[in-house]
This record gives sequence, structure tokens and C-alpha cells, in this order.
Amino acid sequence: MRNLKKIILLSILSCSILPVFAQRASWIWYPGDFDIYMSNVMQNRRTERGSFFPVFWKMDSHYVLVDFHKEFTINAPEEVKIFVQGTYNVKIDGQAIAGFPKTIQIPAGKHKLSLKVYSQGAVPAIFVQGKTIVSDETWLTTFEDKEWIDQSGKVSDKSGTTFVTAGSWNFTDPNVLPSNFKLPVTAQYAVKKEKAGNGYVADFGKETFGFVKIHGLKGKGKLGMYYGESKEEALSKEKCETLDYLDVDLAAKRDSVMPLSKAFRYVNFQAENGVTADSISMLYEYAPVTERGSFKSSDQELNKIYDVAKYTFHLNTREFFIDGIKRDRWVWSGDAYQSYLMNYYSFFDAPTVKRTLLAQRGKDPVTAHINTIMDYSFYWFLGIYDYYKFTGDKKFVQDIYPRMQSLMTYIDGRKNKNGLLEWMPGDWIFIDWADKLSKDGEVSFEQLLYARSLETMALCAKLANDTTNAVKYEKEAKSLKAKIFELYWNETKSALVHSRVGNQPTANVTRYANMFGIFFDYFTPEQKLAVKEHVLLNDKIAKITTPYMRFYELEALCALGEQSYVLKEMKNYWGGMLKLGATSFWEEYNPDKKGVEHLEMYGRPFGKSLCHAWGASPIYLLGKYYLGVSPDAPGYETYTIQPNLGGLEWMEGKVPTADGDISVYMNKNEIKINSAVGTGQLRIKSRTKPVVKGAAVKSVAKDLYQVTIRKHKNYIIKYSPPAP
Amino acid sequence: MRNLKKIILLSILSCSILPVFAQRASWIWYPGDFDIYMSNVMQNRRTERGSFFPVFWKMDSHYVLVDFHKEFTINAPEEVKIFVQGTYNVKIDGQAIAGFPKTIQIPAGKHKLSLKVYSQGAVPAIFVQGKTIVSDETWLTTFEDKEWIDQSGKVSDKSGTTFVTAGSWNFTDPNVLPSNFKLPVTAQYAVKKEKAGNGYVADFGKETFGFVKIHGLKGKGKLGMYYGESKEEALSKEKCETLDYLDVDLAAKRDSVMPLSKAFRYVNFQAENGVTADSISMLYEYAPVTERGSFKSSDQELNKIYDVAKYTFHLNTREFFIDGIKRDRWVWSGDAYQSYLMNYYSFFDAPTVKRTLLAQRGKDPVTAHINTIMDYSFYWFLGIYDYYKFTGDKKFVQDIYPRMQSLMTYIDGRKNKNGLLEWMPGDWIFIDWADKLSKDGEVSFEQLLYARSLETMALCAKLANDTTNAVKYEKEAKSLKAKIFELYWNETKSALVHSRVGNQPTANVTRYANMFGIFFDYFTPEQKLAVKEHVLLNDKIAKITTPYMRFYELEALCALGEQSYVLKEMKNYWGGMLKLGATSFWEEYNPDKKGVEHLEMYGRPFGKSLCHAWGASPIYLLGKYYLGVSPDAPGYETYTIQPNLGGLEWMEGKVPTADGDISVYMNKNEIKINSAVGTGQLRIKSRTKPVVKGAAVKSVAKDLYQVTIRKHKNYIIKYSPPAP
Repeated sequence: MRNLKKIILLSILSCSILPVFAQRASWIWYPGDFDIYMSNVMQNRRTERGSFFPVFWKMDSHYVLVDFHKEFTINAPEEVKIFVQGTYNVKIDGQAIAGFPKTIQIPAGKHKLSLKVYSQGAVPAIFVQGKTIVSDETWLTTFEDKEWIDQSGKVSDKSGTTFVTAGSWNFTDPNVLPSNFKLPVTAQYAVKKEKAGNGYVADFGKETFGFVKIHGLKGKGKLGMYYGESKEEALSKEKCETLDYLDVDLAAKRDSVMPLSKAFRYVNFQAENGVTADSISMLYEYAPVTERGSFKSSDQELNKIYDVAKYTFHLNTREFFIDGIKRDRWVWSGDAYQSYLMNYYSFFDAPTVKRTLLAQRGKDPVTAHINTIMDYSFYWFLGIYDYYKFTGDKKFVQDIYPRMQSLMTYIDGRKNKNGLLEWMPGDWIFIDWADKLSKDGEVSFEQLLYARSLETMALCAKLANDTTNAVKYEKEAKSLKAKIFELYWNETKSALVHSRVGNQPTANVTRYANMFGIFFDYFTPEQKLAVKEHVLLNDKIAKITTPYMRFYELEALCALGEQSYVLKEMKNYWGGMLKLGATSFWEEYNPDKKGVEHLEMYGRPFGKSLCHAWGASPIYLLGKYYLGVSPDAPGYETYTIQPNLGGLEWMEGKVPTADGDISVYMNKNEIKINSAVGTGQLRIKSRTKPVVKGAAVKSVAKDLYQVTIRKHKNYIIKYSPPAP
Repeated sequence: MRNLKKIILLSILSCSILPVFAQRASWIWYPGDFDIYMSNVMQNRRTERGSFFPVFWKMDSHYVLVDFHKEFTINAPEEVKIFVQGTYNVKIDGQAIAGFPKTIQIPAGKHKLSLKVYSQGAVPAIFVQGKTIVSDETWLTTFEDKEWIDQSGKVSDKSGTTFVTAGSWNFTDPNVLPSNFKLPVTAQYAVKKEKAGNGYVADFGKETFGFVKIHGLKGKGKLGMYYGESKEEALSKEKCETLDYLDVDLAAKRDSVMPLSKAFRYVNFQAENGVTADSISMLYEYAPVTERGSFKSSDQELNKIYDVAKYTFHLNTREFFIDGIKRDRWVWSGDAYQSYLMNYYSFFDAPTVKRTLLAQRGKDPVTAHINTIMDYSFYWFLGIYDYYKFTGDKKFVQDIYPRMQSLMTYIDGRKNKNGLLEWMPGDWIFIDWADKLSKDGEVSFEQLLYARSLETMALCAKLANDTTNAVKYEKEAKSLKAKIFELYWNETKSALVHSRVGNQPTANVTRYANMFGIFFDYFTPEQKLAVKEHVLLNDKIAKITTPYMRFYELEALCALGEQSYVLKEMKNYWGGMLKLGATSFWEEYNPDKKGVEHLEMYGRPFGKSLCHAWGASPIYLLGKYYLGVSPDAPGYETYTIQPNLGGLEWMEGKVPTADGDISVYMNKNEIKINSAVGTGQLRIKSRTKPVVKGAAVKSVAKDLYQVTIRKHKNYIIKYSPPAP
């Protein structure tokens, strides 16, 4: 809505300058269909040592036959150009035009323009460009128009037809079909070359992603290229995870670009006698997102961590938010959920969030959890909750609500007699990659996510004007929350226990449910403190070794105000990877491991991904809990800034929103704020009442003050930090 | 199963001759997927005056990612060739082979061969050919294999994965991809040419179907071809239903075949000055089915009716059973249901029945009735009921049962507070093309079809070993049947009334529910006779004017033994069309209309289809009620022959079954039978006990005798018909 306002504003402005102004058209499709189509394309690019390696869950398809229409009232006749992906017809006021018209004339007055498109292999899509008649997200679309006629020629009642507004992205070139979408590429070159075997290993200096290009390839024989995120991997022809085998038969020199993208830092180039090449380079492929969020501080190691995290995250931000660039490149919901959060503090790219959510969910019927993983179904709901909170985009929630309902119906249908979820055939209870992590019985972590998902359903039902179900979901969430504490809370251990087996709570305490309980705000203040001491800061509770769950562990500690502790942890953990030479952050990092042990996973010596989105969480933590910016009302209409140096001398950075950035600078006696959006509440701990020009300072508790931040104003706040 | 037995037998025989014998492989796919894919192709061929004219219901897609596997035990190593439609991997015992292998070696012993295929535009399909390892319907397949591995490399539990046996047809050439399937064509030539305008009208002598071919086309300018099932239509450039416009720009003569098939008898060829052609011919496109059923009698007009009906039916038997060849060419369920029945008495082509049933049903979720028509959902169930009765193919019922369940769940969800179905937004209550036919309230006809569908569900649930639901459906069917008689039976009118409006039965009596009640055997014998007199033979009840409903009307009368009456009706009605020059039977025929009125429908002067599958019902009536052959136990394991001359001097014919034909000859004192299948009960009305060699004659009632017919024996039965 906000963006729309801007566009309208822009067009009014333009109108005053250019008397003949054409509206901007976009390619449009049935909502979610391009997303599903594109995710099929992307997720089917995975190979493992040259073998095609697709996903193991159901892949859906776009609707193959889609009707688009809109009513227009125009003052003057208009020539309208038509571009279509698929076989189509065009109707004006229900009257079909013969053939496949490329240009039509629409007379002045009120008219309905309809296109119906069939396309099996690619998404049915249209691009309509007139002076005022243009295709955009206001068009209505359906996959069953139910437009029959009876024997007298009378047209059917269509009251049972569900029309929804069209989906679109930023495809404004009529000559590029949506199915031809490709990310941009740019040339990159190796920084070092080292002899190995009969060939050499090219080092591109850091983790990268794209298509290897062989320059001046010639001769007859076999050529192998072995990719490595580590040099060890590239050198291991037998065990590297990705490779390319080519049969070369070229009389003259020719440049050759590999058809499939790869993730690597090193390429081991090995050609048979008779095959030669001048050199190799690569086409770096990237998502053209803007790095809007930023963070810089007095700590150089932390700055390096932030930069590498942002690079890691950018590499994993592609057509969708993917897990890691070397292996899967799939839209894993648990991984993507963290990417959404990191995205709100870096690119703030809403379309990639929406695309990923739509791709994960696919179409009805629901036949399994998302990615087959129970927890991943829940993260999907949470992703929508957060999306609305950060963007305020109500239309998307309304669009996706029916698919939320059917997934929740599937989940509700799998409750056991206690009203809880436990493993059923076909379920994957993931939680985390961790040894000896029990998945038996009713795991508390899953119930906690379930409760949060029901809360999300209640919120979204309200947004979708489904009052009846809003009440129902709210009731269910409340009752499940109560049940969780009744069944899992162990007063002696001051913790939620891990599970119930045979209707009895176990004595096992893990970090998972407890840390989520913190930032879900499910605990009482007393419980929070007890959990912090007895679980989060308790070394006897099994350690977390994935950046994935460290994300939440550190978030929970930040939510409890432990920024200083978390800063040390970040420097230890992410700094630890940097010390081992990481140029991007890993899928898993256990400081106790040594040397090549770090590369191993899934029983394979180079199975681990060394560039994993979930490794980039410092982006999120630093933005949300150090710069301290987070929305209160959807879309940052109101928000909080609670900056926390966590022991740093100073820090500065930007947090992006849909309507502009929020800039924060802080040192030990000064805070500077500038915001492009909404109304913020700055909360500062200070021994004395802070001083700020042009704004009142409110005391809210002992040593805690609040300043209201209006947009487009510079604030300088002098304060005196309390003793640590 | 029967066919399988034959193939095995054949291979044993062949083995004894050829020591190295390769099993026969087929292309296989996820069951139903080729059918859905192909029906999308076919149903999107419709044009109306040059405009693309697709269906108005949801079109589904094949699964785009499918896993196929089978375990084999082989005594010697085997070389296996692999052909795939799509991107794929090959695994032996779970181990992937690099690249896209075309030939693999499988060692002796027990091994699992798996292929996983991705294809968006066409159906994922495989063809595997070794000596003993071949792809066929015994392979297992799934669209979600849930085959994940944990961080240690351990493979997931797959107990939640649903594997089903593969679908296939007769695609045994590895070099022809399933998506390239096309019906065969053969050249046909016009029999007459007549000047018209600046061009001419070519007459192909009778209704036909295919691709017009222009010989020696040359010049620059526009060319129009106007197709007509009637000469009037072809001559009406402005109103004919189908046409082709070409922009010709050919310096030298070239032959040109139109890309889209058309139905016509006449082609009006009109070229601008400067465009010339030597001649036109056509490529007649046809389904290569065998005309196994036959009928011949002492009545030449009836024989002509039978022949034209069979030609009409053959023209409408294509990739699927379609409604009519000129206009829709869609898989309408109500039309197809009659085609199934005609097919059992003519081609006995089971694959086309299965394909059509699968295509109509598509995929879940169900969002509307089949073809959006309430009655058409029910005919779909009835089609499965009959398919099983005629073929005994239990596997197909088991395969399709889940899709039956989800459709029935959809229907059950639309019952009103009385437990009955009435119009809801989006529903089309069709019943028949008839003026002033009320669709208001709770229409008895729909409830009757609903009850029959529930009975079908009960039967199929049993076949699919779903005992719980079998009981449930049986109970529901019984209760609905009771309710129908309670609410709609009008004792005074001796009929089921047409509907209830506002909870009150109307006084309106129509033929529909009453005639179905007869051959569903829902009436008591007394009710049957009453209905016959007060409804079926009552001229005051609105007449039926479509061959569609005449099918059931005449069937009901035949079921009541009125073959003589029906014979006269057939000769009047179908003979009436022949007298008007029909070379195929029509969508609608009202003898009261005159001249070009016969061509009009849907408010368009040539809207009517003059070659409609439902026009071919004499095929069915003559086979089932005159030759009198019908199955009792599924697949003709037991069956009845109750021949009835209906006033003919003699008749002879064949009724096909899965295992061979049943031949019947009858005149006024002799019946000859030969059967290739099961055990039949011949029932003959005779004044005296019939005489038959080699079989006992049992008296079952006054003037009614029964002879048991064993297979592969010739029976000659002498009898003496009772006085009419």
C-alpha cells in the first residue's frame, strides 16, 4: 500500500510534466504461480558429484489455465499492446477477438478486458500496455472462471467463482518472458593458480558462486573440474561434492561457460593430454538487492564478522532465500525463516520473502509438512507473522491466508489423543543437527512452535476478516500454551523439559524450547531469569553447535539484556570461524573439532556447507539487539529503538524499512538518531536524565528514559551510561 | 490382470522358441499423469471462429517430480538401457550414477533400481529395457519419496511414503516420447467441388475429422477456409463455427497442412486474387481402435442407424471420449459416461475409458463439480461402477479410489440441512438441454444419482479394502434411497416428482428421475409398471429432444421389455435424422423443427454439433437389450444373454469382452450362441421347451427357459416365440 501511494504520487507528478503519460505495466500471473514455477527451476539445479539431486517432497505446479480480467473506464479510445506467455484469447466485454492479437483497440467508455491463457511448461502470464490500461496487481484472476453458456446462449451465473488479485514482481519489460528470468552475472577472476596433478587449482580468493568459464578451450579428450569450498575439497577428485565432467572435441579454441552454477573458492582443473585451455574465470551470479542495512563499530573483529555475515547472506539470497550455495540450494523453511529476519536488517527485500513463502507452501492438497519437517511447517507461519510485522503488507496476508488455513488443518489433523504433536510416519522432527537429540514422544519445542503458529493464525484470520476462525485459533493457542506449562514446566529444574514419553515428562532439559520461550515472551519475568541461569548460561546443558540454533540462543540472551555476553560469544564463535580462514560462515561449527574435521558432515569428508545462510545471524542480532531497532506496529508505524553497546566503544548503522532507513549512532555518552519512518520510542539507560534538543525526555523507570522519535529529524541525545 | 496372464503365457511360448528373450518394456509414469497431461493438450485445441476457446474448469497438471523404483533379482549381470522424458538420476541400491546414463550394468543378485525424474512441460516418464529388467505397471512410484538423510548420513524412515504402481499405456517404442503421442492419420479426398463466391465448396461426402491439406499453395494474399458440418454452415463466412485464416506469401508452390484439426463435411475455400492452390484434401485423424462389436438385422434402416451410430462414436473416440468433434472436444463427464457404455458394445477399449475417467477427475483439491456440473460428478462415479462390471479390473478401482473419496467428500460437504443437494454458487445443474426445465430447489434426479454414487463408493471401498468406509457409504446410500421415496414419490401421479422447493414436493413430473429409477432398479415391480404407463409412455409429460436423454429413456423402456416400442422409436428418431441427410448423429434433434432450424443451438445459427457421441446410443441399446448380452459378475465371469428381436425377423451380432467376443444370432425359431468367455445364462421366452444340443434347458417361469452357456462351444437353440 505504501509503495502504491508513492507510485500514484509519482504518476501525478509526472503527469504535470508530461501530458501524455503511460502507466507502468508489469507481467502478471496467478498469485504464487511464478514463485512455484521458479522454485521448481531453482531447486532442480542441485547435483551431487554430477548426479541430478532433486528434493524429496512434493513439487507443485502453476495453474496451467488462467483467466485475467479488469474493468476500465476510459475517456478516449485506446490502443493496447498485448504480450502473453502461453496460448491465449482476448475478449472485450466478453466478445472474443479472432486469433492471437498483439494490438487491440478499446473504445471509450466502461469496458471489461479479459485474457485467458494456457501454458503447461511455463507460468501463464500477461503484459498489457495501453496508455491507461495496463496489467498490474489490481487485475483479477482465477483458475476456474466457470463461464459456461446454456443452450439458449445465456451466460452462467459465476457467483461461485473465486477471483483473486494477480501476482507480479518487477518484470516491466514486455519482451522478456517471466520464464526467461535469470539473475545477473558479472565476471570474476582467480587470484592465484597452483599446480596440482596434471593441471592446477585456481583460487578465487574467497567463497563465491556462479558459472565457470573456460577460455580458449581446445583439443579432444576428457576434462574434469572439481569444485571446493576448501582447497582440500577441490583437490579430492574422489570426494568433492560438486564437479563437472566434459567431453571436449574442439578443433579451434573456444570459450565455454558451464551450464550449471557452482559454489566454490577453489577449482581444480584437470584435463587429459590433448585438451588445453588458456585460463578459467567465472561469471559471478548474484541477486541485485541493495545492501541497505549497515553496522560498524569500534571492534574490528566484530565489523569483519558483520561483513562476512552480510556476504554469506547475500550469496544465499538468490531467486529465493536458500539454505546454502554449495549443496542443496533449496527453500528450506527453517533456514528461510532466519533469512527473513536477517533480510529485515539488511536488504529489506520484501519480494524475496513473499516468493520464498509462496514457494515453500506450494499448492493444496497438503500431503506432508513443509520440507517434510514438522518444525519447518511452524517456521512458515512465523515467517508470515514477522513479514506482516516488518512490512505491514496486509494484502499478502490476505492472499496467502487460505493456504495457511489448509496447512493448519493438516497439522490439526495430526494431533494425538493428548492434543499434542508427536512423530507420525512421514514426519521429520528436525529441531537441530545435534548428536543424541531425542525426537521421541511429545517434544516440547514442537508444541511451543505450534502454539506460536496458532497465534499467527489468529492474527492473520483477523486481517483476512475471518472473525469466526480468529476466535477459534486464539482459543486454541491459549489452551495449548497453558497445556505446555502444565505438562513441561519443571519447577526444580527451572526449565521446560525436552519431551514427554509415555504420557510422562522426561527429566531431559535442552535449550530449544527454553530459548524460544524467552523471545516468544511465554515465560513470566521470574521464569525468564530462572531459565537464563539454569539453562542458557548453564554449561551442563548440551551445547549448541550450529549457527542455526545459536541464532535463537543468542537472541534469547539478547532479549534478556545480555548483549555483553553475546558479544563475546559472537566474537568467539564467528570469530573462531574467521580465524580458521572462513570467507563465509558455515552450516555447522564446533570449536572442539580440528583441521579437516571441520569440513566433514553427513558422513562425507566435504559434506558440510561452508556458506550457509543460517551462519549469518550477526546481521540480525546486531541490528535488532545492538542498534536495537524493531517494529511495534506493522510496517514500523510505531517502533522501538533500544540501543545497547554491549561493551563496544561506539557503533553506528542503519536499519531499513519499507519507507526508508532508521540510522543509529551510539557511543558511551551520545546517541544520534535519524528516521525516515513512523514514530519511534527510543529507550535509553542513563544514570542522569538524558539531554536532547527538540524532544521531551520521559522517565519510565529507574535509570530508564524514553524519547519519542519523529521522522525526518536529527536527534542528538546526551546520556550517561549506568555502571556495568 | 487378464491381459497380463496372456502376456506371460506369450512370453513362455516365445521362450521355448527363442532362448534369449527380452521382456517387453513400456513407458511408465505416475498413474493418471499422462492422462491429465494429454487431456490438457486435447482440450486446449478448441477454437471458435479462430479464437482460442479453453475450458472453464480447473485444469490440473502432472506431478513434475516423480520417483520410480523396482526391486529385481537377476541370475546374471544385465545391461539395461534407459530412456527418460525429463531430467533424471539413476540409482542402483540407493547409489546415484553420475550424469544422465543411457546404459547401465546391473550385477547379478537382488538389486533396487530407482529413477527420479523432473519435467515441468511434459509428463515425467521412463522406459527401462534390459533382458529381464523392464519398466512396466509393476514399478512403484511416488511424488514425494521423503528420502532424506540426517547429519550422520543415515537415511530417513520412509514409512510415511505412499507408493503406487505406475501408469502406462501401449507406448513400447523407447524412441517416441509419451508427450509426442499423436493419433494416426490417413489421406481422404473430397467427392465433389462446387463453385461458391470466388472459390469453391469441397464436399467430403460425409462428416469427417482431421487436418485440411492445401496442395500447391502459391501467391501472396489472404486465404480463408470456412468449415461446415452442413453446406449452409460452410457457406456462411460470418457465422460458421470454425474457420482458418491464412496469410499466404509463397513464391513457389507448396503443400500446407493446417495445424489444428477440424470437423466438417464441407470446406469453403476462398482465396484473394493472387493466391492459388491446386486442390485441397485432408488427413483424416482417428483412434486406432478395433470395431469388435457388431449388429446386423433384417431391417435395413436399423442397420444403417447402427452403422452411422458406430461411425459417429468412432469419430468421437479420440485421445479421450469427447462430446462432439466440431466444437468442444472436451471430456464432458455426462457425455463420456454414455461413451463408456457404447464402448463396451463396440471397441471394448478399456484404456480410453481409464484415460477419460482420470482426465476428468484430475488432481486434488476438488474445487468444483466435474465440468462444474453436479450431475456430471455423479456420472463419473457411475462410470467407475460400470468399468469394473464390464472389465473386472480391480487394480484400476484401487488406484482411483482415493480420488473417488476426495470427490465424494467434496459433495458430502455441500449437502443442505435436509441432507439433500441443491444448487450452490458455482454449481451447474445440467440434467438435459430442455426448455423450461426447472433447476430450482432439491431436484429428485440429482438425489437419485447421488444415491447411486454412494452405492458405487461402497462397492469400490470394498475393492480397495476400506471396510470401514464401505459400511459407511452403504448406510448413507440406503438412507438416501429411502429418503428419496419418502420425499418425492407421488402415489397419485405414480411417479417421482421433479423437485422439492421450500421443503415441499412440487407437482411437476419429468422423465429424468423416473427413467433412471427403472434401470437403477430402485422401484418395486408395481412402481415400474406404473411409471412406465404414467410417465414413460405418457405424451403429456414433456418430451425429450436430445439423443443424450433419449439414451436413458429408451434404456428404461428396454429394461421393461418394450423392445418393440423402442425399435419403432429408434427408427423414428435416428431414422428421422438419416432422412434429413445426417451422416453422423446430432447433439439434439427435435423432429418438430424444420430446415436450417435443425442447425441452430446456443443462439447461434450453426451452434449445434452434428456429430455428437451421445447421438450414438443405438450401439448400446442394440447390444445390451436386443442381442441382450450383459455381465453379471465383473469382467463377464458370469453374464446373461436375454436376446429380444423386438419385432425384427432376425438379427446377429457380437458383443466384445476383455477375453473375447460373445456371438449371438437369433431369428423367430432359432438362437445361435458362441462365447469366448465366462459362464452365461441364456434366457429365452418360448411357448414350448427349447431344444438345444449339449446343454440342459431349465424352466424358470411360465414360458421362460434358461440355458447355461459355456465358453468355446457352439450352441443352437430351437424355440417357439410366444404370441406378441
